[in-house]
Amino acid sequence: MIVNTKWHGQRAFTAVGASGYEINMDATEAYGGESKGVTPTEMLLASVAGCIGIDVTMILRPYLSEVESLEIETDGTRKEELPKGFTSILVTFKIDGTIDSKKIWRAINLGKEKYCAVSDSLKSSVNFRLILNGEEAVE
Amino acid sequence: MIVNTKWHGQRAFTAVGASGYEINMDATEAYGGESKGVTPTEMLLASVAGCIGIDVTMILRPYLSEVESLEIETDGTRKEELPKGFTSILVTFKIDGTIDSKKIWRAINLGKEKYCAVSDSLKSSVNFRLILNGEEAVE
Repeated sequence: MIVNTKWHGQRAFTAVGASGYEINMDATEAYGGESKGVTPTEMLLASVAGCIGIDVTMILRPYLSEVESLEIETDGTRKEELPKGFTSILVTFKIDGTIDSKKIWRAINLGKEKYCAVSDSLKSSVNFRLILNGEEAVE
Repeated sequence: MIVNTKWHGQRAFTAVGASGYEINMDATEAYGGESKGVTPTEMLLASVAGCIGIDVTMILRPYLSEVESLEIETDGTRKEELPKGFTSILVTFKIDGTIDSKKIWRAINLGKEKYCAVSDSLKSSVNFRLILNGEEAVE
């Protein structure tokens, strides 16, 4: 699969792949950019969230009427030394609704082990937490 | 670093991190989505291009007046079996201008080895090609 990315001067780029939607990327001022778009490291964390989110909502689709709201926080820890790749990513699902925590944990584990191509592409560990109706729901 | 991602029903999500820019993500119809945004695997390839693109343009900044145009093609190969993570990514720089190919190759290698946090986070191999003024420029 192919993504094409064009440079627009300074540190600004626009990427487009099969979906046809453009993503504007830029560096912050500290790296000579003008903050005119998302940063590539943000995008990596967002792609982890999107991937596991799509998988979990697909696995849970018979129960989605029991889900009022769903948010995913991805918190990435990076190496101190250059090139500062991610060493661990904590993915917290924050879900409100009447859905049972066991169903959600099953979907998270199945999503990660079987379906999520993005987390499968990463060297870093990817761990999960579930906050259900404001309370930690351990596996 | 943290990215927050909200679910909008079906397979649609919106992510936002420190830059403040939103990224809309969705699955294709084959995965129960409505193709209302980029796919997470596209984003992963775009983040590789953005990361190495920012690093290369930063390293080459004394010579950017010698660069007329710069595009980056990221071509990702995935495993056949689930979860289909990326096994190799070929990054092709297509540059037009009077800049010397040796300077570009130095920037690519330095970018990959020292600065690119995204490629440093991946299990897959990341290889490079350079097309300078329409012709392959070997390292």
